[in-house]
Amino acid sequence: MKRIVVIGATGTLGQAISAELKARHEVIEVGATRGQYHVDSTDPASVERLFRDIGKVDGVVTATGKVHFGPLAQMSVEQFWVGLRDKLMGQINVVFAALPYVNDGGSFTLTSGILGDEPILQGASATTVNLALGGFVRGAAIELPRGLRINVVSPTVLTEAMEAYAPFFRGFEPVSAQRAALAYLRSVEGAQTGRVYRVGY
Amino acid sequence: MKRIVVIGATGTLGQAISAELKARHEVIEVGATRGQYHVDSTDPASVERLFRDIGKVDGVVTATGKVHFGPLAQMSVEQFWVGLRDKLMGQINVVFAALPYVNDGGSFTLTSGILGDEPILQGASATTVNLALGGFVRGAAIELPRGLRINVVSPTVLTEAMEAYAPFFRGFEPVSAQRAALAYLRSVEGAQTGRVYRVGY
Repeated sequence: MKRIVVIGATGTLGQAISAELKARHEVIEVGATRGQYHVDSTDPASVERLFRDIGKVDGVVTATGKVHFGPLAQMSVEQFWVGLRDKLMGQINVVFAALPYVNDGGSFTLTSGILGDEPILQGASATTVNLALGGFVRGAAIELPRGLRINVVSPTVLTEAMEAYAPFFRGFEPVSAQRAALAYLRSVEGAQTGRVYRVGY
Repeated sequence: MKRIVVIGATGTLGQAISAELKARHEVIEVGATRGQYHVDSTDPASVERLFRDIGKVDGVVTATGKVHFGPLAQMSVEQFWVGLRDKLMGQINVVFAALPYVNDGGSFTLTSGILGDEPILQGASATTVNLALGGFVRGAAIELPRGLRINVVSPTVLTEAMEAYAPFFRGFEPVSAQRAALAYLRSVEGAQTGRVYRVGY
């Protein structure tokens, strides 16, 4: 049994990840405003406080992150920054702050998404951020000390999100959050590092 | 003959790009403190002023960008931000600000680098930023109006930079800036869009 913290545990994907992990592990559920613990992952100080409260863990999963969607020609620089601050640095802040709290051989599992590989209209910021997360994992994997591993899960659009996102994802075959959650188990309980686990495409 | 602005024209790579383009085109050379025009590409207002001064162009080339190199375990969040603000958003700021000034059928050509594909020790920030640039180009290519194109050149380490960078790039075969510059000609004078031109690897 491992001690795993799931940041973004109250979201659609986070709930499914948490449910799957609970079958065999102790899961600490962290949300922005709900869950056992709260964190603002865009604020490094908030993430540091979180891990001082939680203490040592064997794995860290992040399933968080806002990105602005909109036509490129009307997107402002400020709107483009949203995804960098939130989805990208929100998850990287967690890696930096959690590093001393993850036990030897432990793992980080981040979340990107299909738009890194398959661009859509209004999705240029998401494509940028998702590939950046793949890059971070690729770069960090060869430097992490003490046998720590880091991977990223890149799911296609979730069935549960299709009501809101269908107009952006015409023709995309969605996967359930539960099926996407399986990839997080592969990362947490497996042995690979520096990998992108693509789900549903 | 096209009218091409090269931002970062006073650097090693920018000088080579500028020299190659001048064989057939009007080149406007922009540097941070040297060159015909000056810009701080991390400041959107500075980039907007630049294009108000320059006026219409047929192509925009950017060969700029700082990234922090250092061991991941000692890297601060603030050091990680350097590459996002400078190499990533410096080039994206240019695309956003230049968009109304690029003539129909014109092109953007950005610069990433081999570390996106081949991670090295102390290079996690560079790997992140380089893949983010590839993502931006992939996402933006399908949305640009008026037949505009956008590509990114990803060179390996430059021969001219090996004196400073050799300890980071052991075993990497460098290319001359002049050879790397050829890929910018392919982007500016060719017809592809959304492409990563890898040079020397």
